Amino acid sequence: MPPEVAANVLRELPRLAKAVKAATGCDGVNIVQNNGAAAGQVVPHAHFHVIPRMDGDGLVRMGAHGGAAKMVEKEAALAVVEAIKAHL
Amino acid sequence: MPPEVAANVLRELPRLAKAVKAATGCDGVNIVQNNGAAAGQVVPHAHFHVIPRMDGDGLVRMGAHGGAAKMVEKEAALAVVEAIKAHL
Repeated sequence: MPPEVAANVLRELPRLAKAVKAATGCDGVNIVQNNGAAAGQVVPHAHFHVIPRMDGDGLVRMGAHGGAAKMVEKEAALAVVEAIKAHL
Repeated sequence: MPPEVAANVLRELPRLAKAVKAATGCDGVNIVQNNGAAAGQVVPHAHFHVIPRMDGDGLVRMGAHGGAAKMVEKEAALAVVEAIKAHL
């Protein structure tokens, strides 16, 4: 997605998230965008999920196999940071 | 978050997501933003997670209790749509 398109689409996200919160009375909101089948994308165009959340609903979970994933070692993490910087 | 701040922050998201994909060789990327403790927010300022995903890693799951959530009935869904529209 070109940067200006992203900016124009996402400019409206805070307003939408607030409307979802006001309309549903939820306790929190997840904004989730999935890129690629590996990330759970089903509909093949860029779109954002705005998900109302209630305390304790267990609806969205992060972490491998339902528990906390093992933390990456600091050195390995820094190598990834450098690799990302090299591609920016 | 004010709309223009959102636009300026999020303008860079596609570039960042592509850099993460190039740096890690991942198959897909999730972009996740959590608003409120009910949504899993831990760090109390607005921030986006850019999560590299590998096929079959099982890292991010949506749906209550690990399975597909029961679909909402159409009439109930339309009522929510109208309530959201009323708050936009």
